[in-house]
Amino acid sequence: MRTIILSAAIFVLASFAAAQNSQPQLNLMPMPSNVQLGRGQLPISQSFSVTITGHHDASLDLGVQRFQAQLSRQTGIPFWRKAGAPGILTVHADHGRDAVQKLDEDESYELTVTDSSANLAAPTALGALHGLQTFLQLVQVTPTGFVVPAVNIKDQPRFPWRGLMIDVSRHFIPVDVLKRNLDGMAAVKMNVLHWHLSDDQGFRAESKKFPKLTGMGSDGQYYTQEEIRDVIAYAHEHAIRVVPEFDMPGHSRSWVVGYPELASAPGPYTLESGDPIIDPTRESTYKFLDKFIGEMSKLFPDAYFHIGGDEVDGKQWNANPKIQEFMRAHGMKSNQDLQAYFNRRVQKILAKNHKRMVGWDEILRPDLPKTIVVQSWRGQASLAQAVKLGYSGLLSYGYYLDLMWPASRHYAVDPMADAAATLSPEEKSRILGGESCQWAEWVTPENIDSHIWPRNAVIAERLWSPQNVTDVDSMYRRLHAVSLDLEWLGLTHDAAREHMLQRMLGTADISSLRVLADVIEPVKDYNRWDDSKGPIDFHAPLNRLIDAVYPESDRARQFTALVQTFVQSGFKDQAAEAQIRAWLISWSDNDARLHPLLEQSFLLQEDAPLSQELSALGATGIAALDYIDKSQPAPADWRTQQQAIIDQAKKPQAGLLVMITAPVQQLVDAAAGPRN
Amino acid sequence: MRTIILSAAIFVLASFAAAQNSQPQLNLMPMPSNVQLGRGQLPISQSFSVTITGHHDASLDLGVQRFQAQLSRQTGIPFWRKAGAPGILTVHADHGRDAVQKLDEDESYELTVTDSSANLAAPTALGALHGLQTFLQLVQVTPTGFVVPAVNIKDQPRFPWRGLMIDVSRHFIPVDVLKRNLDGMAAVKMNVLHWHLSDDQGFRAESKKFPKLTGMGSDGQYYTQEEIRDVIAYAHEHAIRVVPEFDMPGHSRSWVVGYPELASAPGPYTLESGDPIIDPTRESTYKFLDKFIGEMSKLFPDAYFHIGGDEVDGKQWNANPKIQEFMRAHGMKSNQDLQAYFNRRVQKILAKNHKRMVGWDEILRPDLPKTIVVQSWRGQASLAQAVKLGYSGLLSYGYYLDLMWPASRHYAVDPMADAAATLSPEEKSRILGGESCQWAEWVTPENIDSHIWPRNAVIAERLWSPQNVTDVDSMYRRLHAVSLDLEWLGLTHDAAREHMLQRMLGTADISSLRVLADVIEPVKDYNRWDDSKGPIDFHAPLNRLIDAVYPESDRARQFTALVQTFVQSGFKDQAAEAQIRAWLISWSDNDARLHPLLEQSFLLQEDAPLSQELSALGATGIAALDYIDKSQPAPADWRTQQQAIIDQAKKPQAGLLVMITAPVQQLVDAAAGPRN
Repeated sequence: MRTIILSAAIFVLASFAAAQNSQPQLNLMPMPSNVQLGRGQLPISQSFSVTITGHHDASLDLGVQRFQAQLSRQTGIPFWRKAGAPGILTVHADHGRDAVQKLDEDESYELTVTDSSANLAAPTALGALHGLQTFLQLVQVTPTGFVVPAVNIKDQPRFPWRGLMIDVSRHFIPVDVLKRNLDGMAAVKMNVLHWHLSDDQGFRAESKKFPKLTGMGSDGQYYTQEEIRDVIAYAHEHAIRVVPEFDMPGHSRSWVVGYPELASAPGPYTLESGDPIIDPTRESTYKFLDKFIGEMSKLFPDAYFHIGGDEVDGKQWNANPKIQEFMRAHGMKSNQDLQAYFNRRVQKILAKNHKRMVGWDEILRPDLPKTIVVQSWRGQASLAQAVKLGYSGLLSYGYYLDLMWPASRHYAVDPMADAAATLSPEEKSRILGGESCQWAEWVTPENIDSHIWPRNAVIAERLWSPQNVTDVDSMYRRLHAVSLDLEWLGLTHDAAREHMLQRMLGTADISSLRVLADVIEPVKDYNRWDDSKGPIDFHAPLNRLIDAVYPESDRARQFTALVQTFVQSGFKDQAAEAQIRAWLISWSDNDARLHPLLEQSFLLQEDAPLSQELSALGATGIAALDYIDKSQPAPADWRTQQQAIIDQAKKPQAGLLVMITAPVQQLVDAAAGPRN
Repeated sequence: MRTIILSAAIFVLASFAAAQNSQPQLNLMPMPSNVQLGRGQLPISQSFSVTITGHHDASLDLGVQRFQAQLSRQTGIPFWRKAGAPGILTVHADHGRDAVQKLDEDESYELTVTDSSANLAAPTALGALHGLQTFLQLVQVTPTGFVVPAVNIKDQPRFPWRGLMIDVSRHFIPVDVLKRNLDGMAAVKMNVLHWHLSDDQGFRAESKKFPKLTGMGSDGQYYTQEEIRDVIAYAHEHAIRVVPEFDMPGHSRSWVVGYPELASAPGPYTLESGDPIIDPTRESTYKFLDKFIGEMSKLFPDAYFHIGGDEVDGKQWNANPKIQEFMRAHGMKSNQDLQAYFNRRVQKILAKNHKRMVGWDEILRPDLPKTIVVQSWRGQASLAQAVKLGYSGLLSYGYYLDLMWPASRHYAVDPMADAAATLSPEEKSRILGGESCQWAEWVTPENIDSHIWPRNAVIAERLWSPQNVTDVDSMYRRLHAVSLDLEWLGLTHDAAREHMLQRMLGTADISSLRVLADVIEPVKDYNRWDDSKGPIDFHAPLNRLIDAVYPESDRARQFTALVQTFVQSGFKDQAAEAQIRAWLISWSDNDARLHPLLEQSFLLQEDAPLSQELSALGATGIAALDYIDKSQPAPADWRTQQQAIIDQAKKPQAGLLVMITAPVQQLVDAAAGPRN
C-alpha cells in the first residue's frame, strides 16, 4: 500500500504543477508597481532581436548584450546572429547616464509586450536596464514555445537606495565572485554594493599611500586599485553604485598591524588578536586619515563614503591616561562623546573630498551635519530617531543574511513599519531605503552565493515594490523561479551545495545525503559560535554540512504547510495525507542508507545523530498518521515517548537543526488529543 | 511490500558502497604503469604545503599553484597561506622545458608517498606536472580526514601522442570552454590539442594576410591571433601541444566564400551550401597557401601542422575541363592522383616552414616523404599500412566521441590491436599514439563538455597506460571518480545537464524528468541526421532532450549488470532482485508524474512516447519478476504482448533510445522460458 500511496501523492503534486503552468504566471521579483496583463503572448524564437532607439550609451549597449546572452542561456537559443530587420524588442531611453550614478536618478521604465513586439521605454538608461531584467523574468516555456505574455508594466522603485553589503574582511571574496553577485543584484534591481573593505581580520583595499594597510593588515588577499576600479566599472554597467566602507575607530585591528601609531595603546599588533581602537585624540591620526580618505575618495567615485563607526569597544580609551586627559580637557563625559568628536573630524575630511558620510547607528549624534546617512542595524526605532533629527536613514535591521533567517522573516521587515510608521511624510522622505548585509564570518567564495541567494531577492523586492506587496505564498513561488534565473546568470547557490555534498561523501551519488540536507538548516542568529571557544579561526576550512546546507529548507517549509492543510481539513484531505506519509517514509527509511556513508567521512560523522533523529521523526509521524487514520487517540505513554524524540530532535547537532519538528509535533498532538 | 523491498535494496547498495570505501582504492585514470601500495596514509590538512626543488620554471610554478587550487576545491581546505617550513610534498624536476614542447620529451615521473611526506621526482618539468595530477587523484575522504595512501608510483606514457581533436568549425567553441577542456586533458595526461580550425561551415582562425577567411568565411565567431596565442600558452602551461588543422582541399567551403578564386568552379559561394573544393592545378592556389601557411606557421609553434585531406569530393574537379586537361597532361589517372600532387606541393610549403605534415587517412600515398604523419579514422588496417610504408601514424578510428558510444567500446580499441598487432617492433615504433575526436555538428559551448567528458578519460588511459590495463569494471569505477574531479576542475558535463533539464521543464524540480533522462541515450553513429532532410542548420538551437542527456547511461548499465547477476544466480540473488524491482517500480510509476509536465513544454512533447515506453517496460519487468518468483512459465500470449512492448521501445523516439530494453528482454525470456 505504501508505494501506491506514494505514487498517488506524487501524481497529485505533479498535477498541481501542471495546472500552475497552464495559466500565465508572472514570476517577477521584485514585483513591479503596476502590471496589466494583456491578451496573447510574444514568441521568443531565433528571429528575436533588439533595437536601441533614443539615447545610446555604452552601458545600454552592454546591457543589451548581456540581456541577449542571458536570454540565450535561459532558452538555449543562440541570438548572436546580426539582426537585419527592426528588432522585435525596441529599447528607448530618453537620456543617458552620468559617469557617476547618483542616488536620486530616475529608475522608472515602461514595458509593453504584445503578441508581435515589445517596447521598453524609460527616461534614462538606468530605467531601461531595469526593464530588460523584467523582460528576462517574463520569459517562460510553454507548449508552443518560449514566450513572453502580453503585458503592460509601469514600474519604478519605492526606495532609491537598495543595497547589499558584502563583508570581504573576515573571508576574502575574489573579484569574480563579487562580479557574479553584482549580476544577481542587477537581476533583482538592487543598486548599491556596500563594500565592507576593512575590519579587524583584514584590510582588503590597496592604499598606495599606506601600503602596510594591506601589506601587514591582510593575509595577502586584497584588491589592487586596478581591481577596485574594475569592480566599480562593472557595477556601473549594471546600474549599481559602489559605496566603500572603512570601519573606524573600532573594528580596526587590521589598520594598526602596519600602523600601530594609530592605536590607542602601544603595539605591536597582529591580525589574530587584540582589541585595538583608533586614537581620536592625536592630530597625527587625522593627518593619516586626511591622506587616506583623500586617496580613497579619488578611487571610489560615489558621493557616499561609509566610515563604519559601529561597536566601539572603549577599553583602550579607558586605559589610556592621555586620552582620558583629553576627554576631560574637552568636557567629554563618555566614550560616545569622544567618538562623536572623531566623527566630526572625519566628516570634515570627507566633506573636503565632496563625500557624504554614512555610518552605522552609533554615529548618530545631533551635532553632526544633516548631510550624513545613518544605517540602522538596531531597528526601525533608531531609524525613525535619525530621520526625526533631520538625517537620512537606511534600514539594515532585519536584513542580516548571515543570521540564517527564512526569506519570509526578512520579507516581513519594512523600513516604514513599526516606529517608522508614524513619521511625517517629510521625515519618511529621508528614509532612503535599506541594505541586506552579508557578514563573512562563515562564508567563503565557495558558499557565499548560497548564503546571499536566493533570499536576497525578497529584500530587493521589499525595497523596490509597493509596500502592500506582502503575500508570502506568492513570494516563495516567485522566489523559486528567480532562483533558477540566478543560476543561469552564473550564481552558484545550488551548484555549490551539490559539489560540497559530493566532496563530503567522496562520490557523486549523494541521494541519501540530499534527503537529510534538504530538511536541515544551520542554527540561527549568532548561535553558531560560542565566544567561550575563543576567537573564530578565519583560516579554518568551511567544508562541513553546516557550510553546505541552505539557510532555509524548502522541503521543510512545504511539509509544514502540508501538515497545516491536513489539520485544517479536519484530517480529511487525503491527497495531503498521502504526500505527508510519502515524505515521512522517505525520512524514516533514510538513515539505514545514509548512516554507513556518514561513518566513512570525517566531515560527516558529526551528523550521524541528525540522520538518526530525522528517521525517528519520520517513524513518529507515520505512527501519528496511523492513529489519526484509526480515529482513536494515541495512548499517553506513546505520546510521552514521541515527545522525547521530538524534544531531542529540537536540539542542534553539529550546528544544525532538523526543521520538521514542529509539523511532526502537530501530528503527534493531533494523534494524542481530541480531533474533529 | 514494495516499499519495504525498496528500502532493503537501497540498504544493500549502500553497504556495497561503504565496503568499497573502507579499503584504499586508487581511483587513478590513466592507471600508472607501476603502482606499489605502501602502509599508512599521508594526511592532507591545512598544514599541507609544496616545495619545489631542482629545476624551477614558470610552468612548474604555475602547475603547483593550479595543483593547490584544485586541492582546495577537492577538500574545501584553503592552502593559500604561505608555507614556512619545508613542504610536505617535494617536487623535483631535473630539467626544465623547451619553449616549444616536443613530441619525444620525457614525460615520466616517480611519486612516493609515506605517512608523513611525499616526493615527486621527474627528469623534466613535464613529468612533474603529470605527477601532480596523479597526486590529486589519490586524495580521498576517510573517517580520519582527507588522505593520500602511502604508495610508490613509477609512471610513463605508452604513447608520446595522446590527443583530443576539437572541431570548432561546425559550432564555434569560445576560448574559456577550450581552456576548461585543456584543464580536463591535463588531468588525464593528454598532451595534444588538435584544433580543427576550418571546415565547410566556418573558418575560425584569424589571418591578417587573408582577412576574408574569417570576415566572410565565418558567422563572425572566430579566434583572433591574440586569442590563439593565449590558448597555445595556456596549453603549454598544461603540458599540452597545440596542432592546428586547416582542412584542404576538401571541406573548404569557408575558404572560398571570401576567396572564390581558390575553388575549382566559379563562385560566388556562401557558407550555407555548395561543395566547393580547392583547385590544385593553379599556381595561384600555392601562392595563396604559401603566404597563409607561412603566417600560420609563425602563429602555431608546434612542429606538426595538420592539413586535413579527408573526404575529398571530386565533383568540381570532374566538371572542370581545365583541371581534367591538367590531369591528362601530368599523367594523373584519378582524383586521388591529383590530391597526391596537391599534398606534395603543400608538403613542400610546410617543410619550408619547418613543419611536419599531418593528414587524415586519405593523404597516404607512397610518394610523400616519410616525415608525414597519417591520422587513421578508418581503422588499424590503414594505420598498419601507413607505418609499414615508413610513415608515422595516429589512431582515431574507434575514438570518435560524437558517435555516442559507451566508454567501454572506446576503451576496447587499441592502436596496437587487430591489423597493427602483427607489425614488427620497428613498425610499431612509428605508431605515435592516437586522438579522440569531438566533431561538432551537435554540440554547443553548453553541452560540449558532456559529449567529451568523462568518456574521453578512458581514451586517455588507453593511450597512456600499459596495453594490459583493460578491466572494464575497474575502468567504470575509476571513471566515476575522475568525473567528479573533472567537475571540480570546472568542467560542466554534469552541471550542464541539470541546467538543460531545468530549462526544458521551466522549473528546478526535475526529479521525474531525471528518472527518464537517466536511462536514455542519443542514437548512435551518424543516425541523428538523415541527409534526406537536407543540410543541418548549424544555427538552430540545441536545447532538446537529445542535447542534454549523457551519451552513456550509467543507470542502464548498472541495471543491465544487475539483471545479469540475477540471471546468473539462477534467479536466487534476492538482493539483486530487490534492487531490480525497485528500479522497475520507479520507472513504472514515472510516466504518471512526468507526462503532464512534458505536455507543458514544447521542447519535451516529443519525448512523451519515451516516457510511456519506459513505464511500460517497468511494468513488463515487474510482471516478469512476478512470474519468475512464482516459478511458473508465463503464458505465451503474455510473452507476445510484452515482446511487442519491448520491440516498440527499441525504436528511437526523438533521436533517443531507452537503454533498458535488453535486460527487460532477458527478464521476459526468463519468465516465459524454462529456468533453473
